[in-house]
Amino acid sequence: MAEKLPKGYRAAGVYTGVKRNPTKKDLSLFISDRPAIAVGVYTQNLVVAAPVKLCQSRTPAKSILAVVANSGVANACTGEQGDKDALFMAAKTAQTCGVDPEQVLVMSTGVIGEMLPMDKISAGIDEAFPLLNTDEQSLVDAARGILTTDTVHKIKTREFEIDGVQICITGVAKGAAMIGPNLATMLALILTDANISADDADAGLKDAADESFNCISVDGHTSTNDTVLLLANGSAGGPQLSGPALAKFQATLVEVCEDLAQSIPADGEGASHLITVEVHGCQTRRDAVKIAKTVADSTLVKTAIAGNDPNWGRIVSAAGYAGIEFDPAKVSLLVNGMLLYDQGQPVKFDEAAVSESMRSQRDTGIVLLMDGGEASARFWTTDLTAEYVRLNADYHT
Amino acid sequence: MAEKLPKGYRAAGVYTGVKRNPTKKDLSLFISDRPAIAVGVYTQNLVVAAPVKLCQSRTPAKSILAVVANSGVANACTGEQGDKDALFMAAKTAQTCGVDPEQVLVMSTGVIGEMLPMDKISAGIDEAFPLLNTDEQSLVDAARGILTTDTVHKIKTREFEIDGVQICITGVAKGAAMIGPNLATMLALILTDANISADDADAGLKDAADESFNCISVDGHTSTNDTVLLLANGSAGGPQLSGPALAKFQATLVEVCEDLAQSIPADGEGASHLITVEVHGCQTRRDAVKIAKTVADSTLVKTAIAGNDPNWGRIVSAAGYAGIEFDPAKVSLLVNGMLLYDQGQPVKFDEAAVSESMRSQRDTGIVLLMDGGEASARFWTTDLTAEYVRLNADYHT
Repeated sequence: MAEKLPKGYRAAGVYTGVKRNPTKKDLSLFISDRPAIAVGVYTQNLVVAAPVKLCQSRTPAKSILAVVANSGVANACTGEQGDKDALFMAAKTAQTCGVDPEQVLVMSTGVIGEMLPMDKISAGIDEAFPLLNTDEQSLVDAARGILTTDTVHKIKTREFEIDGVQICITGVAKGAAMIGPNLATMLALILTDANISADDADAGLKDAADESFNCISVDGHTSTNDTVLLLANGSAGGPQLSGPALAKFQATLVEVCEDLAQSIPADGEGASHLITVEVHGCQTRRDAVKIAKTVADSTLVKTAIAGNDPNWGRIVSAAGYAGIEFDPAKVSLLVNGMLLYDQGQPVKFDEAAVSESMRSQRDTGIVLLMDGGEASARFWTTDLTAEYVRLNADYHT
Repeated sequence: MAEKLPKGYRAAGVYTGVKRNPTKKDLSLFISDRPAIAVGVYTQNLVVAAPVKLCQSRTPAKSILAVVANSGVANACTGEQGDKDALFMAAKTAQTCGVDPEQVLVMSTGVIGEMLPMDKISAGIDEAFPLLNTDEQSLVDAARGILTTDTVHKIKTREFEIDGVQICITGVAKGAAMIGPNLATMLALILTDANISADDADAGLKDAADESFNCISVDGHTSTNDTVLLLANGSAGGPQLSGPALAKFQATLVEVCEDLAQSIPADGEGASHLITVEVHGCQTRRDAVKIAKTVADSTLVKTAIAGNDPNWGRIVSAAGYAGIEFDPAKVSLLVNGMLLYDQGQPVKFDEAAVSESMRSQRDTGIVLLMDGGEASARFWTTDLTAEYVRLNADYHT
């Protein structure tokens, strides 16, 4: 399916000079032609960047008209001047686009502790405004403008029809792969032309983020800037979604978020495996997520998988220190579909075959069966290679 | 100070063939000539190895006479047969030494999921018994018998006099450096000839472990086998310690435990820096430990330090997701004594000088000032190098 902007949105991406490489984009503008519902999900880190504080104070909102985003400098740990710069970035966008400052949201990603070069940002907004367009290339340019060390831009579009109304959801994201100068920031902006209430949008985005962006991890860091925004402008027409129509919207929103979320570790530079950790049989989904995340964040598990080593002991042991109660004698483990650990006991298995299955494909599947309930979770991460360390150690602030 | 056994103890270490390299030791025996108080602190992992379960069931104890330990196979994730093997290891030791089976404690470390080769273990106990001796070489042999991938054995002795009574505390430990086939298991055995009550020993060991072994981390993994045992046999003579004498004992016990604990990350193979994370100004020590541990376990912080990169953003951000409430605008940060972040704002500092200070010494000091209370904590860890990943990825189960 081609990637496209939903109805009533325009986008542009430009190069302002914040990034060093002039072949890149580093400022993006997204405009809705009519006031949009806007809701957000933000970093849980106590140290919160200025643009995140701005968005937190303005969402949920009912009449957002623009989102401006920059990459290269995160405007994090920048004190009061940083707050002023984020406000100015919104005000400048509002002035250029002819809207109220309060109708603008702001996202930033990049180096932390550096001040935004406001002259470049201002010039970029001026440059982007006349380029705003509904075509695919403008969407791609805008998707590129939020990237930092990502190797590919990330756009997902899903369309569906409800009672004769064609609805589109398109998301763009930047990755959490902590390579280079950035702080593993994950940004995503989901645009839809659906007609939904602010409450449904708010609850829907939280649920979707919980099943997607909150289930990925590259190195366990929660950034100062992590932000997921959802705008819904109703341009698709039709009545406000409810009942089965709302459920269909929600299911599609989850799909878009999952696709975007998975694309983040999949683009992890220096990684040789994309790892999916599934945990089944917990009492609550929260428990399952905690176990899955603990396994996914284990340095020992990640290095073992980098070495194509089916080291079940590291996986079972990581589950054991997740802080969730379970019966170790009931736990079973499969790697790439092969049973390695059965009801608390190691199984004789063909080590060479498991190792070869890991070596021959980029995806590694870990399935833990806890046999203590009905709840499940999935978590996505990457392995930990010597190349990852080299990339992270060799960058100097 | 020379390392020595406290009065009333004998030790031996032998090679049984569990390890591949016959120049190593892999079985150790420690004997008290009179019944000793014995207390333990154990792994918090839900997945607990058989020898740990045995020790947990027998401590606190008032008449322990022997501790038998093996390295090479951890007897973890070995089901009911593993429990039987741990019991047999104690019973065999008891028979050989002429004591009751319940007077023996057992420690194991090494590969998990493999059964103990009981013939070799039995033969090793037979071989070790006649070698039991009080001299330094026997202590060194026994200290070597619990090592796995450690590059050096770890023994610390402290002596002090109270009211004319000479008291000795000697500890041996093996490292948590997760290199090679092992699961980062930390074992320590502290022997003292002090005359103390079981209650004081129990509370004292818990406190000492909290300030030492619970404040080190190499890769964040809590092993299935982590065990710290303290034996006190009263051979020094004198009355049961209390008041200032007990306080002196406790302070010395903490010193021994801290020295042993620090020696573990210091011996981390593949590491180029030993990192001390100090956190001051928290409401509770628990909060300070949580923040220090979160910084110490951050892959991004550890790779930055491997690259001699004073990346304060990663450190401050890691503190921010520790799950502890603090005011980000009050936080300051020093690296190797140089101020990089002051009251929530980045400071202009000489990056080359900080980087050079990191490059030129093995120790890196991180100090976080939270300015929100009186409590402090220290945590020790290593950096994360490409060499570490190679060592961990290239081992195959």
